[in-house]
Amino acid sequence: MMLQTLREEVLEANLEVVRRGLVLYTFGNASGIDRQQGLVAIKPSGVPYEELRAGDLVITDLDGRAVEGNLRPSSDLATHLELYKAFPSIGGVVHTHSRFATAWAQASREIPCFGTTHADYFHGPVPLTAHLTAREIEEGYELATGHAIVRRFAGLDPLVFPGVLVIGHAPFCWGKNPMDAAHHAVILEEIAAMAYYATTLNHAAPHLPREVLDKHYFRKHGADAYYGQPGTDTRR
Amino acid sequence: MMLQTLREEVLEANLEVVRRGLVLYTFGNASGIDRQQGLVAIKPSGVPYEELRAGDLVITDLDGRAVEGNLRPSSDLATHLELYKAFPSIGGVVHTHSRFATAWAQASREIPCFGTTHADYFHGPVPLTAHLTAREIEEGYELATGHAIVRRFAGLDPLVFPGVLVIGHAPFCWGKNPMDAAHHAVILEEIAAMAYYATTLNHAAPHLPREVLDKHYFRKHGADAYYGQPGTDTRR
Amino acid sequence: MMLQTLREEVLEANLEVVRRGLVLYTFGNASGIDRQQGLVAIKPSGVPYEELRAGDLVITDLDGRAVEGNLRPSSDLATHLELYKAFPSIGGVVHTHSRFATAWAQASREIPCFGTTHADYFHGPVPLTAHLTAREIEEGYELATGHAIVRRFAGLDPLVFPGVLVIGHAPFCWGKNPMDAAHHAVILEEIAAMAYYATTLNHAAPHLPREVLDKHYFRKHGADAYYGQPGTDTRR
Amino acid sequence: MMLQTLREEVLEANLEVVRRGLVLYTFGNASGIDRQQGLVAIKPSGVPYEELRAGDLVITDLDGRAVEGNLRPSSDLATHLELYKAFPSIGGVVHTHSRFATAWAQASREIPCFGTTHADYFHGPVPLTAHLTAREIEEGYELATGHAIVRRFAGLDPLVFPGVLVIGHAPFCWGKNPMDAAHHAVILEEIAAMAYYATTLNHAAPHLPREVLDKHYFRKHGADAYYGQPGTDTRR
Repeated sequence: MMLQTLREEVLEANLEVVRRGLVLYTFGNASGIDRQQGLVAIKPSGVPYEELRAGDLVITDLDGRAVEGNLRPSSDLATHLELYKAFPSIGGVVHTHSRFATAWAQASREIPCFGTTHADYFHGPVPLTAHLTAREIEEGYELATGHAIVRRFAGLDPLVFPGVLVIGHAPFCWGKNPMDAAHHAVILEEIAAMAYYATTLNHAAPHLPREVLDKHYFRKHGADAYYGQPGTDTRR
Repeated sequence: MMLQTLREEVLEANLEVVRRGLVLYTFGNASGIDRQQGLVAIKPSGVPYEELRAGDLVITDLDGRAVEGNLRPSSDLATHLELYKAFPSIGGVVHTHSRFATAWAQASREIPCFGTTHADYFHGPVPLTAHLTAREIEEGYELATGHAIVRRFAGLDPLVFPGVLVIGHAPFCWGKNPMDAAHHAVILEEIAAMAYYATTLNHAAPHLPREVLDKHYFRKHGADAYYGQPGTDTRR
Repeated sequence: MMLQTLREEVLEANLEVVRRGLVLYTFGNASGIDRQQGLVAIKPSGVPYEELRAGDLVITDLDGRAVEGNLRPSSDLATHLELYKAFPSIGGVVHTHSRFATAWAQASREIPCFGTTHADYFHGPVPLTAHLTAREIEEGYELATGHAIVRRFAGLDPLVFPGVLVIGHAPFCWGKNPMDAAHHAVILEEIAAMAYYATTLNHAAPHLPREVLDKHYFRKHGADAYYGQPGTDTRR
Repeated sequence: MMLQTLREEVLEANLEVVRRGLVLYTFGNASGIDRQQGLVAIKPSGVPYEELRAGDLVITDLDGRAVEGNLRPSSDLATHLELYKAFPSIGGVVHTHSRFATAWAQASREIPCFGTTHADYFHGPVPLTAHLTAREIEEGYELATGHAIVRRFAGLDPLVFPGVLVIGHAPFCWGKNPMDAAHHAVILEEIAAMAYYATTLNHAAPHLPREVLDKHYFRKHGADAYYGQPGTDTRR
């Protein structure tokens, strides 16, 4: 079987969002990419998580052609592929319908940065995509969703904003590898919940001052980071 | 014992809503129908779920006459029967008092379609019944509840809107079979929660555009569906 | 050891509210009464639930004199005793600080009857007490709390309204026996949660029409009840 | 290994906030102090709780110099040390990003005392710090956070207000020992949740009258306390 390690990583990312309570039934999907071979491993569509095995994952190339696997890939495959093509620095993508992040997407609001929990992971508001046109939907909905995300990220570094809200839909998150993407999905849900409670407590809740945002973001990320243990990937 | 398979399916549907946290004590009830024999299996009234066995289910005909079973059927039996008579395409009915769906029913609001999670299961807002008259309540409350649902569904396909909010009361859901009905009850609760958070975040939250609603509904349902694995019932 | 059966019932009532998630640390307390002997068994003050044994319960008479037990009784004992004296039909009392019921008490609002879940257990709004005077607090706070509840119940049947919100404090519930009181505490919390979500969804949410309130209450309670199994106590 | 008992106490305090659901991934940290030796034991930065052992804790002096341990201490160490220096009566500090307490911090609101659950632990509103200046952040963010807390506590007894909300950030709690601090973190989260629901139910929710606040606080604390068992530390 091809890409055994990648398959295991993608399986773990799929299971992580289940363990953390972000998933109902078969909602959501995680994938990972082998950049050298240009191959993606993704959850098959509509398969229950409790039955999911590494061997059930579908391997496709970046054009979505199945390379290994008998099952149909997640219906959101085209969105994942578009993200891998546009964002060369990412190694994994996770899509969920987690409750609070989805509520913000449904409310058509980006998530303002109200606090340091947010600033530890996103260096500013969680972006929100624009609506698709009827024509885009007709010509290829999932691909157009990918395009809408990429358009929204013009000028933004995807590792500095490791996720997005697709308007009226739900979040997509990503990271250096599949588990990193899953962690961002879990943390985005918590950020979304905290921001929900903060903004309903105080409709004029102030955004985190710029200097605190920078301080928190850069104490965890980049050359001067001092959170976690040096040389290990404990910075979440 | 009659209808062993149906009994097992109805038992599983009853247990599914418990496992998913929709049920407090003995609240709620699930039933299923054998269309060929015109017989319904339903949870007995007020029996704790942890003690419930397939043999405890009550079998009645479509007029509510007990055919097998010593226990009294759910007090909502007449509502279930009315749904089976009016909606020939359904094979299972599930009633719960799940928290968020009940809150919408108590708030006297149908649930607008704010997002794609909703559009994956309901092809528009979750309908709300009208109030019963005092006379209807007096003459047969549970039957009248069934009538109110059926009246609300004039012009609606019950498999395209697999549930309803009974005003001031709680949801009834249904599906092709008992487990399908239970899944719809679970998903309605999640839809109701997401819509609660979306509308309290933004009182002017926009409804999902028609073309996205259609896209999501029809990628999971009907002849052109491409979600899930072909030939298997994984489309939830 | 005295009153072994009552002790076991009171222990179970204490544990029920823990199992159902209504209790943090040592918050809350349950008691039961033996009407023939005029003796009450109550949780000792500040003892962790996981260590609580039937033998740890404190037995007192209706004047609060310890009859058996080396531990100090719950600091709310005087409130329990006042309820037993004023409401001869009750056999158990449960006090919790469960989250949603407490929020209504803190918001100084009685809980309107918005739906049938509520109407199945309370035949109208959940009552709210008036504030105590500074003098009442000084002269005997817990006793005065009991008096405030009893005053609020002038003209109300405590079995028809099996609980109350003490303003700025939290609920007290009761029932025919200790487990019945615990069930009412659990159900009040669910009613309080549903009413919270209903009223924040629709600030003008209508009260349940009188005829539906009566219908639901009386299909579970009184001579014409038809919910549950005849001759068994399954009517919750 | 030094300070074995303190290490075990600090480990338990760290695990308590995890068990109670206040922690996501590696968020948060607990510490304890040995006042005689002037040494502090604190969680290492970014280490998963499930792998945390007493021996992993880092021992530092009050100037933050590592005395034992190979791991880097929590990045919030300087805040903890400042609290130990300014508040001689405390023996443990716990910092979390628990959801509701953090929401109040993000909403820039102190938590009013709406009820007796609050009054049992805080003798008035939960204080909120002022914003740091850009210069303070630059010169030493974590130390400045400690200073901001200490400034806010001018005239307040830290054992009578066993926690604070750092604006735009999250709570810090403390107590006589590490487990006491952890309990206060858990209880603050519950107080914050109840207050959230109370204030969104009634934007004009009244503060608890002074005499009830005093009554509840002093029946659990001080010379005249009568909650719990005499001579044991069961007063939570």
